[in-house]
Amino acid sequence: LPTKLPNTGTTIFTVMSALAAEHGAVNLGQGFPEFSADPALLQAVTDAMAAGHNQYPPMTGVPALRQAVVAKLNDLYGSAYDADRDITITAGGTQGIITALHACVGAGDEVIIIEPAYDSYDPAIRLAGAVPIGVPMTLDYRIDWDAVRAAITPRTRALIINTPHNPSGRVATSGDLLELERIAEQHDLFVVSDEVYEHMVFDGAPHESVARYPALRERSFLVSSFGKTFHVTGWKVGFVAAPAALSAAFRRLHQYTVFTVHTPTQHAIAAYLANPAPWQGLSDFYQAKRDRFRAALAATPLKLLPCEGTYFQTVDYRAVSDLPDLDFAKWLTTEIGVAAIPLSVFYQRPQERGHVRFCFAKREETLALATQRLQKGL
Amino acid sequence: LPTKLPNTGTTIFTVMSALAAEHGAVNLGQGFPEFSADPALLQAVTDAMAAGHNQYPPMTGVPALRQAVVAKLNDLYGSAYDADRDITITAGGTQGIITALHACVGAGDEVIIIEPAYDSYDPAIRLAGAVPIGVPMTLDYRIDWDAVRAAITPRTRALIINTPHNPSGRVATSGDLLELERIAEQHDLFVVSDEVYEHMVFDGAPHESVARYPALRERSFLVSSFGKTFHVTGWKVGFVAAPAALSAAFRRLHQYTVFTVHTPTQHAIAAYLANPAPWQGLSDFYQAKRDRFRAALAATPLKLLPCEGTYFQTVDYRAVSDLPDLDFAKWLTTEIGVAAIPLSVFYQRPQERGHVRFCFAKREETLALATQRLQKGL
Ligand SMILES: CSCCC(=O)C(=O)O
Ligand SMILES: CSCCC(=O)C(=O)O
Repeated sequence: LPTKLPNTGTTIFTVMSALAAEHGAVNLGQGFPEFSADPALLQAVTDAMAAGHNQYPPMTGVPALRQAVVAKLNDLYGSAYDADRDITITAGGTQGIITALHACVGAGDEVIIIEPAYDSYDPAIRLAGAVPIGVPMTLDYRIDWDAVRAAITPRTRALIINTPHNPSGRVATSGDLLELERIAEQHDLFVVSDEVYEHMVFDGAPHESVARYPALRERSFLVSSFGKTFHVTGWKVGFVAAPAALSAAFRRLHQYTVFTVHTPTQHAIAAYLANPAPWQGLSDFYQAKRDRFRAALAATPLKLLPCEGTYFQTVDYRAVSDLPDLDFAKWLTTEIGVAAIPLSVFYQRPQERGHVRFCFAKREETLALATQRLQKGL
Repeated sequence: LPTKLPNTGTTIFTVMSALAAEHGAVNLGQGFPEFSADPALLQAVTDAMAAGHNQYPPMTGVPALRQAVVAKLNDLYGSAYDADRDITITAGGTQGIITALHACVGAGDEVIIIEPAYDSYDPAIRLAGAVPIGVPMTLDYRIDWDAVRAAITPRTRALIINTPHNPSGRVATSGDLLELERIAEQHDLFVVSDEVYEHMVFDGAPHESVARYPALRERSFLVSSFGKTFHVTGWKVGFVAAPAALSAAFRRLHQYTVFTVHTPTQHAIAAYLANPAPWQGLSDFYQAKRDRFRAALAATPLKLLPCEGTYFQTVDYRAVSDLPDLDFAKWLTTEIGVAAIPLSVFYQRPQERGHVRFCFAKREETLALATQRLQKGL
């Protein structure tokens, strides 16, 4: 069968999770929490089903959920989104991203992605008919705005930003967003902003959403999701917030892509969001995990890179091995018993920097077992 | 914003449901059942959540659900699908269809659709870069295979079939499937087979799945869903069954479209499918509704067209009105208080035949209220 993604195989997350399972490795590869969701949230799904919310919801999403999303965004980020016009509930962040791209780019367009880049961006851009242009971050994983500017051509039509950033764990600053706003305005670009880790930012820093910056908000598809925030990555419910014209274009495609999203879960999340800021405490929870995990890794030859947000810790393993990232990640999984994700796969032209990513969204026992294996094995 | 779907507005289902709500009309437009799912199925979702099935499932779907799907298909249709290689769980039928099309057609290709055609086919084909070629059914809504043959060109690459057929309520015969098999082989076409109404076939006729016909199965993406079968259209869980090479192409795109589907619901449906043939009785249930609904409509000037499957009844209203289909459907909604779906919107070049579709997946009181209004008002 001919394919539109000739260079694409199975996602690295599937590959590494399968390898971890096969070898009994502690799976710190694919990012998913080992914690249970709040029982009240599970109960809310049960209640919604019992209340008969099992048929198609409106195509754009359950009104109460769209209203709860707007209340949150406008409250946290000072935006002025409208629940009816500007919010669409999606089947998770991934669907929000691919549909947003289809809505704003097409054949002949270029889309800038900041590398390392989450693995769905490149194929999503190609499937939309456009060409992804990778711009590497600086060596310490900050966005290189000069390099972004240098990559812009008359065909550049959009840019994908991701903060907090997966896989690096970096968090964009207000300065970054102002740069982005300037560049987007100057070159008339759309922005797809992947903010699925919005509620995991450490050390008191704020999450800098595109929603905070009016001129940026006007040209942005803000993509987020509830999976990471509420420990339910398998529920696949997210949202896209965008001004009315962009949302109209988004919805036109959304309705033929998935049409709509799991009704009882939408009602449940809407009810749950009526609690006072139910994401509160999540940053502190993960910050404490980060600190303990880093302390344990400090007793290995792995060099810790900064971690300002997300539930990912990237390390430099060059003191241990000369293997390329993917080979090292596989070796670590099969020989040491700890699965990780190689960073080289997040670049168009593989960059072998000796970096792998661990997910620390795990119980303390799990992290202890993993760090013991790393301490012993390396 | 430029759009890839210049001629596309909001789906007719959203439009008519909104109009029905606004005017307090009985909504026989958008197809969704007014019945509750089996409490045991709802309980199974609750159980799956409590058991901790809330994180990402495997990208291809929960193994137990893929196995249950294979057992069902192979048992009912004599196929030999493999749960690991050939089945992918999707976010409903709509996502199965658009992703299957993206997997098998591209720029320069033509895809034949049988009209009246479900409204997502045309935009899904265009978004995949190909050109939809509409082939009208005969005047009594049978597939016109001579017309299909005449529409084939060297660029034809795929064909979408839908049985039981929405909106006409027709069911394809073994003769139809054999014709399709011959044509697909002769012209080396892929087939996307929309079988979401597979368990609603009346008068003892069998559902003729592509899975029954080995040479056809080899080139087909069989798309189905659990929403209609278990009265949970809002759950958005379906599947695509296709031979390994086709499934591999499908999955490559699926992983960047939605990645995966609501985990607890997958577990719940898997558990529920372990009951003996839980779709059993559904055809009888809807056949009885059809018979009562038709008897009530016989007391109006509306002319009944055949209904062999699905939960849709199409009528000819020419004895009542000369309005075009869309205008008549709106008039019926606002003036008579019964919402319907005009058939003209399911054609590339609107065919004004004086036909609208009613959904009879409703409680007897609801159907009684609707038919009373029609009896009085027309
Ligand atoms: C969609 S599976 C991958 C989960 C994830 O976002 C990650 O590990 O980076
Ligand atoms: C996806 S909403 C429309 C439901 C349906 O399939 C129909 O009414 O034909």
